[in-house]
Amino acid sequence: LLSEHFNSLSKIVLILEYDGRRYSGFQWQKGRPTIQASLEEAIFKTTGENRRVITASRTDAGVHARFQVGSFRSGTRLPASTLVRALNFHLPHDIAVKACEVGASFNVRGDVIGREYEYLIYHSRTRSPLMEGLALQVPWELDLDMMNEACSMLKGKHDFISFAAAAGRDRGTVKTITSAGFERDGNSITFRIKANSFLMHQVRNTLGTLLGIGSGRKTIEELKQLLGGGRPGIAGPAVAACGLYLTRVYYPKDLELKYENLFNQSI
Amino acid sequence: LLSEHFNSLSKIVLILEYDGRRYSGFQWQKGRPTIQASLEEAIFKTTGENRRVITASRTDAGVHARFQVGSFRSGTRLPASTLVRALNFHLPHDIAVKACEVGASFNVRGDVIGREYEYLIYHSRTRSPLMEGLALQVPWELDLDMMNEACSMLKGKHDFISFAAAAGRDRGTVKTITSAGFERDGNSITFRIKANSFLMHQVRNTLGTLLGIGSGRKTIEELKQLLGGGRPGIAGPAVAACGLYLTRVYYPKDLELKYENLFNQSI
Repeated sequence: LLSEHFNSLSKIVLILEYDGRRYSGFQWQKGRPTIQASLEEAIFKTTGENRRVITASRTDAGVHARFQVGSFRSGTRLPASTLVRALNFHLPHDIAVKACEVGASFNVRGDVIGREYEYLIYHSRTRSPLMEGLALQVPWELDLDMMNEACSMLKGKHDFISFAAAAGRDRGTVKTITSAGFERDGNSITFRIKANSFLMHQVRNTLGTLLGIGSGRKTIEELKQLLGGGRPGIAGPAVAACGLYLTRVYYPKDLELKYENLFNQSI
Repeated sequence: LLSEHFNSLSKIVLILEYDGRRYSGFQWQKGRPTIQASLEEAIFKTTGENRRVITASRTDAGVHARFQVGSFRSGTRLPASTLVRALNFHLPHDIAVKACEVGASFNVRGDVIGREYEYLIYHSRTRSPLMEGLALQVPWELDLDMMNEACSMLKGKHDFISFAAAAGRDRGTVKTITSAGFERDGNSITFRIKANSFLMHQVRNTLGTLLGIGSGRKTIEELKQLLGGGRPGIAGPAVAACGLYLTRVYYPKDLELKYENLFNQSI
């Protein structure tokens, strides 16, 4: 009976943006502000239903998202455009629903084929009030060419166990990085990395290693050794969460075409 | 005697960045948080002196600055690098000193030959948590080509009295705009405008008019009439302060070369 009721519910998929500064990460934690708790409260206020939200990635404390994908089941009859407005009305100012599909049939976590993160570095001796909490300040010189050379070595299929947070947290440590690189625009340096999936803290540990290479504290030879295996936590150190953004979650092309309202938002 | 004492003081010039969200503008106001009050308090904590800070532009409530120029007189013996660190230590997180020159001999307001502002528009039907308070959300379609055509008419020397805030607030209403235009990057649209100087609220009233043209509520013909004279406040309406950034103050080339530590900061 319960499963029949469940099947009568629609799957609702949301594209989300959030500023992670105030939150202890995506996932529900007792007595702490989380993105998930805020979303589920807004869903309750909108539909009267207590629902669990799942997402493509569970971002850590302080991490931002420009393009996160979430879903929940609901019996609501509200159309997508009304749901977007109502959820945004009930959500706090630092979380927003950017697009919504009612009755979607894909699995927002299981069907993911790629994830892209950006990390924003503010390269200056003095702090930036306008980038506070949104970028990591690096006050020393960086050899960006060397860092990009190191990035080219990251690409491809490797055992990233050395870049993992802690033993046993991830099921498999072999991942495929499809692109990685740094781009400078004045004082801003953006690190962009894409893979099929990432280990916990992998992006932050990777950037910690690359900053070490860029400032002469580590060598490309050391990176090569880390990519040959090792044990969790020996790469890094992990950079702060404040500069990290989940910027895109990728699904198979036919699926993205079918739900183009979600994946190609226009004004 | 007092003037002799004053002459024994050095002029200290600061390049400032601030997030204007929490402030009632630059200028000191009784019982209200202002950039000026925060700066003067930090100067007191650093030097033990009560000093008045003047700046190239007095930004309005909520307006940000990426490159503001300020100065004060001081008897401090601290070198520039120490002053930067000490002031930044005492300043709140949303104001920072980016560079400092001790013993400068120019007038940060009187010697200005140009000012540049940027206005950031977030072009989307849904609000952006990551641009909250940093951009104006415009949820309707905009004809950017038409808006850029209108910009080309703004250039040159005109009587901008129609774009002024209120009668009698500005001494002269004839100003020379040297560049103006819109640039799109995804959902972000940046309006950039440069002039010898601006009337109070001129940038925000100008953008209000241009958004009217871009959304079909106003014509280029109407802009032409506004540029021919008129009376304060008939252009606009002024857009919100949140998207406005003072991005550069210009001085004569020889002066900028002499103080290149201020005008060409590098890591």
